[in-house]
Amino acid sequence: MSLVLYELGGRDDRRYSQFSWRTRLAVAHKGLNTEARPVRVSDKAAIAFSGQGKVPILMAGDTVISDSWSIAEYLEATYPDRPSLFGGEVGHGLARFTNSWVDRQIVPRIIPLLMIDVMTCVDEADGIHLRGQIEKAFRGSLEKLSENRDTEIVAFRRLLDPARTTLRSQPFLSGQAPAYADYILFSVFQWARIVSAFDPLEADDIVAAWRERMLDLFDGLARAEGARASVPTNSGPERR
Amino acid sequence: MSLVLYELGGRDDRRYSQFSWRTRLAVAHKGLNTEARPVRVSDKAAIAFSGQGKVPILMAGDTVISDSWSIAEYLEATYPDRPSLFGGEVGHGLARFTNSWVDRQIVPRIIPLLMIDVMTCVDEADGIHLRGQIEKAFRGSLEKLSENRDTEIVAFRRLLDPARTTLRSQPFLSGQAPAYADYILFSVFQWARIVSAFDPLEADDIVAAWRERMLDLFDGLARAEGARASVPTNSGPERR
Repeated sequence: MSLVLYELGGRDDRRYSQFSWRTRLAVAHKGLNTEARPVRVSDKAAIAFSGQGKVPILMAGDTVISDSWSIAEYLEATYPDRPSLFGGEVGHGLARFTNSWVDRQIVPRIIPLLMIDVMTCVDEADGIHLRGQIEKAFRGSLEKLSENRDTEIVAFRRLLDPARTTLRSQPFLSGQAPAYADYILFSVFQWARIVSAFDPLEADDIVAAWRERMLDLFDGLARAEGARASVPTNSGPERR
Repeated sequence: MSLVLYELGGRDDRRYSQFSWRTRLAVAHKGLNTEARPVRVSDKAAIAFSGQGKVPILMAGDTVISDSWSIAEYLEATYPDRPSLFGGEVGHGLARFTNSWVDRQIVPRIIPLLMIDVMTCVDEADGIHLRGQIEKAFRGSLEKLSENRDTEIVAFRRLLDPARTTLRSQPFLSGQAPAYADYILFSVFQWARIVSAFDPLEADDIVAAWRERMLDLFDGLARAEGARASVPTNSGPERR
């Protein structure tokens, strides 16, 4: 069955959506391939076929699935004989909990700090769209939201303590091998490294070592999407 | 094999240790029974045999296991044919993550608010011991730490958001049926209901509905340990 992934695309064809990265890694985990089609965040018409307004969207033959969590469940149900994303009922339940933890307690704390850098990764219309959305949600200009990030990042790092403690006892959140829960948390750092040269993690953090292992998976699938730090253009005043 | 559980015991033989409740429910999940022996928190001599200073301790024949997480792993490894606590490798990995989340982000936020009530549940020596321990760790008198709990509980409830969101989609953290990750989080509320009449949850919270389901498990095992609200003695000034 052909799989087509609609995902956010930025300037220079940058694929920066964290939710799409959850899907990309889930697809690779299943040993599958997708054709990934970029969509601009402000271009609702391009995904009107899905009956809703957000990417990622997976088209599997004639089936349309939106929402990264639903896509993971679809892949698990449709390809039960391939490597499991959840490792059974309990793993499925606790991956949902991990998804909620990341979406409720991690994502909202890093978005305001880095969104200013996304402005340089997307075209003008998308920049206006995203700025409006984030400035309304977090009640401040992107410049204001990010101005103290060198100090505010410390509180963000502390939020990762449950993952940090876990990774002292096992190489992945999911145990001895990575599974969907790892892709969920990793997607946050993948988004960060694509859009910004500002590293949310300290170099000696055990979470950073796990991030390296995640970047290595599937022949370096995530690493192949260039990190922002390596972009040789003028970095602008908000970059470190 | 005979199983003996050493756990904290308070006045009127109250068994209030949250970590011990994790073990009690894990043992019940496996369809096993233990003889539970109370130990006072200040009585280190009673558990010197274990080579360390904390309960719960499980004695399984000649084997001594301390630490609730290690006990759960021991039970799972020793009784693989009985109902699984983790549901496989991924569930094991993510239960460890849940354990870290509860211990790092939930427990430290509720302990200072309710510890004042523990004083009325333990004998004098244990009261002095616990007060010293908690007042040092949280840098304030128990009276001071709890004085604004009516308002500070709101922030605690918000911390439960990842569990709350999860429970909107499935009846237990572990999915369709309870498993060890549920016992971990539940132990916090079980401790709270045994030591205090102050309810950390609002009545219409979906987490409270889950708590009721947890209290019903194993013929009401956890419910059988009397809630503090039902104790007909003088409630004292700190009780609501």
